[in-house]
Amino acid sequence: MKVLVVGGVAGGASAAARLRRLTEAAEITIFERGPYVSFANCGLPYFIGDIIEEESKLLVATPAKFKKWFNVDVQDNTEVISIDRKAKTITARNVLTGEQRSHAYDALVLSPGAAPLKPPLPGVDLPGIFSVKTVPDSRAIKAWIAEHSVKQAVVVGGGFIGIEMVENLVHRGIKTTLVEMLPQVMPPFDPEMVEPVHERLAAKGVELCLGDGLKAFEQQAGGNGLVVHTASGKALPADLALLVVGVRPETSLAKEAGLTLGQRGIAVDAHMRTSDPSIYAVGDAVEIKDWVTGQQTLIPLAGPANRQGRIAADNIAGRSSTFRGSQGSSVVGIFGLTLAGTGASEKTLKRLSIPYRKVYIHAGHHAGYYPGAKTIDLKLLFSPEDGKVLGCQAVGEEGVEKRVDVVAAFMQKGGTVFDLEEAELCYAPQYGSAKDPVNLAGMVASNVMRGDHPVEHWDAVDWPAVAADPSALIVDVREPGEVARGAVEGAVNFPLSSLREKLHELPQDKKLYVYCQVGLRGYNATRQLLLAGKDAVNVSGGFRSWQQAKL
Amino acid sequence: MKVLVVGGVAGGASAAARLRRLTEAAEITIFERGPYVSFANCGLPYFIGDIIEEESKLLVATPAKFKKWFNVDVQDNTEVISIDRKAKTITARNVLTGEQRSHAYDALVLSPGAAPLKPPLPGVDLPGIFSVKTVPDSRAIKAWIAEHSVKQAVVVGGGFIGIEMVENLVHRGIKTTLVEMLPQVMPPFDPEMVEPVHERLAAKGVELCLGDGLKAFEQQAGGNGLVVHTASGKALPADLALLVVGVRPETSLAKEAGLTLGQRGIAVDAHMRTSDPSIYAVGDAVEIKDWVTGQQTLIPLAGPANRQGRIAADNIAGRSSTFRGSQGSSVVGIFGLTLAGTGASEKTLKRLSIPYRKVYIHAGHHAGYYPGAKTIDLKLLFSPEDGKVLGCQAVGEEGVEKRVDVVAAFMQKGGTVFDLEEAELCYAPQYGSAKDPVNLAGMVASNVMRGDHPVEHWDAVDWPAVAADPSALIVDVREPGEVARGAVEGAVNFPLSSLREKLHELPQDKKLYVYCQVGLRGYNATRQLLLAGKDAVNVSGGFRSWQQAKL
Repeated sequence: MKVLVVGGVAGGASAAARLRRLTEAAEITIFERGPYVSFANCGLPYFIGDIIEEESKLLVATPAKFKKWFNVDVQDNTEVISIDRKAKTITARNVLTGEQRSHAYDALVLSPGAAPLKPPLPGVDLPGIFSVKTVPDSRAIKAWIAEHSVKQAVVVGGGFIGIEMVENLVHRGIKTTLVEMLPQVMPPFDPEMVEPVHERLAAKGVELCLGDGLKAFEQQAGGNGLVVHTASGKALPADLALLVVGVRPETSLAKEAGLTLGQRGIAVDAHMRTSDPSIYAVGDAVEIKDWVTGQQTLIPLAGPANRQGRIAADNIAGRSSTFRGSQGSSVVGIFGLTLAGTGASEKTLKRLSIPYRKVYIHAGHHAGYYPGAKTIDLKLLFSPEDGKVLGCQAVGEEGVEKRVDVVAAFMQKGGTVFDLEEAELCYAPQYGSAKDPVNLAGMVASNVMRGDHPVEHWDAVDWPAVAADPSALIVDVREPGEVARGAVEGAVNFPLSSLREKLHELPQDKKLYVYCQVGLRGYNATRQLLLAGKDAVNVSGGFRSWQQAKL
Repeated sequence: MKVLVVGGVAGGASAAARLRRLTEAAEITIFERGPYVSFANCGLPYFIGDIIEEESKLLVATPAKFKKWFNVDVQDNTEVISIDRKAKTITARNVLTGEQRSHAYDALVLSPGAAPLKPPLPGVDLPGIFSVKTVPDSRAIKAWIAEHSVKQAVVVGGGFIGIEMVENLVHRGIKTTLVEMLPQVMPPFDPEMVEPVHERLAAKGVELCLGDGLKAFEQQAGGNGLVVHTASGKALPADLALLVVGVRPETSLAKEAGLTLGQRGIAVDAHMRTSDPSIYAVGDAVEIKDWVTGQQTLIPLAGPANRQGRIAADNIAGRSSTFRGSQGSSVVGIFGLTLAGTGASEKTLKRLSIPYRKVYIHAGHHAGYYPGAKTIDLKLLFSPEDGKVLGCQAVGEEGVEKRVDVVAAFMQKGGTVFDLEEAELCYAPQYGSAKDPVNLAGMVASNVMRGDHPVEHWDAVDWPAVAADPSALIVDVREPGEVARGAVEGAVNFPLSSLREKLHELPQDKKLYVYCQVGLRGYNATRQLLLAGKDAVNVSGGFRSWQQAKL
């Protein structure tokens, strides 16, 4: 059996290695357009930033290792330019010599990946403008930085790679501006959850141009670098510009071969098989199922790509294994801050009209009595029907992705907010709390589900209108010292610590919008008010959520 | 409705607060024998070690806060000495004044906790010997250290508190000896998993007396401190001795009241109700179900205690909520090392004759190409029947409890090793790997379950006998440079990198025991050998596991 693999990074490399472990009978060849197979593309920003010092560290496996360990041939610098499905052959072209050869296959695995988007703007091909996708890209950027003594840079695109590049350029002492077309960085996340990232970027001296598009690149007079012109009219000088506005699945080979494409990428079934039963496709180029929303989507992440590669290999070897879809778990670090998420975002749920409820909590990453506790801001999205968790996003300095991973595990098994409430996690004061942030989020959400804890959200209320409404009252239950540092306009102050004795002063016939700093006292106050027969809702996440949302 | 709560720390405090949130109609009173309610007893070692500087930090809630927030009366320094179940009254005694009073109840919650074990040994009451259970204990220890310029200490008991106390005493510059009756510290864990803890303790200058009991304490001549005599005949000088050999559930009040006791603690149903329907019991004094093994057990941990308290309150308020049992998730930190576990240990499974399989992995806490990856040693126990996860233990410097928490979440939902294999966790190079340690453990175990990966374990094989057995061969597939640094006696070296070309040199009729350094190359080699029709097993966890097991 001859098996050819097109593309030798995450998905393709995993498919080849797995297949060899399942059979010694196959002849396996990987074709890789670039000079490297199985390299760590998630490490490129850190290589550019000199955090990863040796280029060789990025090379997870070499052609020699593929040969020795797995008896897999690697043809690097070799692009597959066409597939003849009838003849079951491919044509490959050596990109260095131009030589073309035809190769027969019994099974073919396409793992072509995705190419960096390059908008057709004036000057986009000027020297000093790079994408960040390959080892040669990174090497060229490093050389450019060294040779041109880069002092200032513009990064266009505020997604994962953009954010990581900003950090690494700043780490190298380069003054950096970030241009992002949307009003927020990290588009997969909800806007209020990335506010701390915006703050952190600004605090580190990064100039943020949000909600601003790209118009043109221009060479400065005398060869003194570039000017990046934005849609809003800004002219940003730059010795270096990085274009990291997203990727486009490499579907052309599949399309020309007549394979079925989906809306966004190569269409595959759960076995990672394309419309041609001899051809499989995996990785960033395929459309897969987001099992939380049920939608077909692109999830260009390494973990799912590896899993898909193994599943394609299983099926080629005659094992009927299936890909369960993806939930898009992801994390990014930025100047000591961690932003992580899993499942659907609120904006996705809204867009798809999927019913949801949400709660916010703000809790220490470990016991408050142990020094050094850092706050985690966590948002939990769940189904109003049965409390099933739909998504989770969190941001903070410590222990953030741990909580998201735990929630991701529960989600994978159909877990509900009641499961989170009951989760028995490891606790010692330097690691967590007897009520872990995951438990707290679960408790708050469970109380909402049980009807014990009516919540309202900052972004869903027209606060000036509520303040003016004679049938409503905004009740701040924090202590006067906290109120003095900022409060919602029109709120009356009834500190929780004396609420019970003053309960009679609050009206029975008005809707009471209760809030505290992070939501806990508001919850306790709301319970008191409800038990006293009043109409009260707690504002989820308290004033801290409000501040985040308003920033 | 009058509700009395006996014991005001984790379980009792949670019950009182929760009950108030459910009803304003109850009169709630907490009786606490000690001077403090709701204090952070998990923080005591760190308070003694001056990591937590202010005593006030340990006080999670004061009687004043209970009154203001929750309208709960706290009677501190008040011991409940008897229960009259017929009359539905208790008798409480003020421990400072001796005054006794009777109080009526409609519902009673017992949360008496557990008392430190104090073996009846000669000299056990000498000055300078302390247990570590309460704020006054800690204060007394701190005062003793200051007043007696403590230079050397003996900690008796190598459980959670013992280990934490050793760290904190060393942190204060005190030369410390640890005496533990068992041949290992941290008895809930399997011996090979705590070897790194033994090493770390030794590296920090802690003298370890394992497998050694306590015989007597003796006052040194001239009041110059103590001598701790061990069963093996050691005489350990000490300016301070801590007796932390475990706890005994405080069941006497329940017993005298005629409530049913279990084998180990107060018996309760899933509603946390005792044999008297008006009396509930929660926390360290009750016997609960270990849902992994199905056994009744004591799990003296704060998280479960809090949950039980809330459940008792629910039921008192007329809500039928139930406790789902515990899986004993726990973590301890020691000199930068983290040891964490959840579910059953191998020794527990053995003791209960529960069928299990196990695998070991050793994997970086984040991508190897990003600097600073620390190895996590992880052991996964699972059912041979369906792959259901039974337990997980891990040790390492970073990201340890994160992986155990993720596995704990899967376990709670009946997760299998196949679920771990497929888990979609957050990945960026500084946080994890595209194949996270959780995935890796799941992959290795799934391969075992699918029969693709026959494994053997270091501890289950008589290696000299295998080496001498003409029908067996030990095959080391590491590179010669690694072999030179240590190998199994009698092994032949066939590096994976050239195994395929030398495959014919290995016999077809012998059982091949394959090993590498951590198990991955051994797996790949075993697959080659099996596909070539040979009889091969991989030694799980490789030479690293062997070294840990043999240490």
